[in-house]
Amino acid sequence: MITKRLILCGFGNVGRAFANLIHERRNDLKKRYGLSLELVAIADIDGAVHCNNEPIPIDTIMAHVEKGGTVETMEKIGRPGMSGIDALTRIEADVLIEATPTNLRDGEPGRSHIMTALDKGLNIVTANKGPLVLYYKEILDLAKTKGCRISMSAATAAALPTLDVGRLCLAGADILSIEGILNGTTNYILTRMREEKCTYDTALKEAQEMGIAETDPTLDVEGYDTRNKLVLITNSLMDQTFGLGDVEVKGITGVRLDDIDEASKKGKVLKLVGTASISDGQISLKVEPKALEMEHPLATVNYSEKGISYLTDTMGQVTVTGGKSSPVGAAAALLKDLIHLTLMAS
Amino acid sequence: MITKRLILCGFGNVGRAFANLIHERRNDLKKRYGLSLELVAIADIDGAVHCNNEPIPIDTIMAHVEKGGTVETMEKIGRPGMSGIDALTRIEADVLIEATPTNLRDGEPGRSHIMTALDKGLNIVTANKGPLVLYYKEILDLAKTKGCRISMSAATAAALPTLDVGRLCLAGADILSIEGILNGTTNYILTRMREEKCTYDTALKEAQEMGIAETDPTLDVEGYDTRNKLVLITNSLMDQTFGLGDVEVKGITGVRLDDIDEASKKGKVLKLVGTASISDGQISLKVEPKALEMEHPLATVNYSEKGISYLTDTMGQVTVTGGKSSPVGAAAALLKDLIHLTLMAS
Repeated sequence: MITKRLILCGFGNVGRAFANLIHERRNDLKKRYGLSLELVAIADIDGAVHCNNEPIPIDTIMAHVEKGGTVETMEKIGRPGMSGIDALTRIEADVLIEATPTNLRDGEPGRSHIMTALDKGLNIVTANKGPLVLYYKEILDLAKTKGCRISMSAATAAALPTLDVGRLCLAGADILSIEGILNGTTNYILTRMREEKCTYDTALKEAQEMGIAETDPTLDVEGYDTRNKLVLITNSLMDQTFGLGDVEVKGITGVRLDDIDEASKKGKVLKLVGTASISDGQISLKVEPKALEMEHPLATVNYSEKGISYLTDTMGQVTVTGGKSSPVGAAAALLKDLIHLTLMAS
Repeated sequence: MITKRLILCGFGNVGRAFANLIHERRNDLKKRYGLSLELVAIADIDGAVHCNNEPIPIDTIMAHVEKGGTVETMEKIGRPGMSGIDALTRIEADVLIEATPTNLRDGEPGRSHIMTALDKGLNIVTANKGPLVLYYKEILDLAKTKGCRISMSAATAAALPTLDVGRLCLAGADILSIEGILNGTTNYILTRMREEKCTYDTALKEAQEMGIAETDPTLDVEGYDTRNKLVLITNSLMDQTFGLGDVEVKGITGVRLDDIDEASKKGKVLKLVGTASISDGQISLKVEPKALEMEHPLATVNYSEKGISYLTDTMGQVTVTGGKSSPVGAAAALLKDLIHLTLMAS
């Protein structure tokens, strides 16, 4: 039995789903993977909860927050004002689970959590794209120096196994190009425009009403979320250190119904595609609305589904689609990375 | 650097592609995975080649067989009459690569190779379905007793990563059902019947002329190949020991153009699908032509492409399609399993 002591930073929807999941599955994880997961601290915005290196009682905490409580107001074990950095410094653990919100300005507080954790020799399992896309090289270098691992399935389309397929399923093959529909919101909007023959604005409004698009949809519709995932996937699988400025990005705000009809007339379908392609040994990254042939393996990825397609030398084209887009899906991706940490030597 | 000494049994198209691949990639494998692969013996129908525990010269052997030679006629190191069992008994190695033809009567000679290798404590990486579908429990039990691992990606749709997705990408999730288009030949025939509005016989003849279907297409068109893969995938992922008799099988020989038109009229498409479903805790296995809704993630898997779709509790539905159907694709799957043996603790 391998025991992993976890500190969870960020206790929003994903953090809570994760705590719930490892609690519900604790017996199954022991039985199937010989893995005992102990949550030793949770840090949220206004404070933390820990029991001085003992595992914290997840069920009691979940009951408390479900009644509207916060972690730091837990009786006896709540620590008002205690930050993630404090918790990582004071409590002994093996893995940081980073689930604070993505911040694309300075990556905080995730960046400080990750650097502090690496400095202490913890492995990192993160759902947070911000620190990784902004400080990829810095973080990877520190991890290498400290002999730690960074797992980022939950930050790279979560339950859609983008990195696992590229790294594990295609091990030994050379990846020649990557194409991905990596953002559910934009794919939903484009699908509905085509289906309903409606404008971008109408489809966006519907997506917002359904909770698929945010009130400020910029991150999605301008292609930035696709770009962020593409950078992480390419860096990770092709051993690169691309930054956000290295990607040519065009979102879907300029897509007109005419463009979609035009594609349809040619038997094609318009999708927002993130592409990493190699030409003369140079990798170039691009995000743009692209008319795909109906035979293209991503052409039938519709609504808020996602998918990624790898062209390889020895295994041909391998495409994976689907994966639940929800806090539970993201939590399941975090858990999967933890299991892989245990299963895999390096 | 981890060194793995390999004995390759079977030197047909797949065995040769494998030998070529590990020779071509030897430097890359060292660099990317810290893995040094040494081929110490090859056994084929009429004899073997080995250098008394030294690595054999792959390039010289490939040049020899490309000129029509056989392994046992290699100068100095060829061993006429030496069997796979002899080679496994005499030569020290870490892994058996089993690439002899699938034999569904008694699993030989693959079965004896595998049992001999396990007895000596070798791990097994196999492209051969025969021994596994006929003697699954016996083989797994011996492997467990000896602390050995059995990897079978190349026997379960090869470059389409059926097992890896189910075991690694979905780690921690519960698989609720499996649906697969696991045979390229039947999928090609059904695709062409639909496209050309032709009969089964016409489409079969075309597939035979193109080398996609065998002269005796029974194994494919009666659904047996799909059944074999389904049994291995289900046993492996759901920890079962199903045998061939546990699957209800209906192939495509009875499919009429009318059936396909009927499906089309309802906006569906007919595919040969292998299914593992759970009802009241009981797993049932079935292979049959099935009319899939066009929104089904396998509906657009056409021609000789394959695909598999997993429904899970926490990750939703995850589908993978594609993967090269060729000796090189199968060799790449063997190589991948070898890399995983090295990467993964258990």
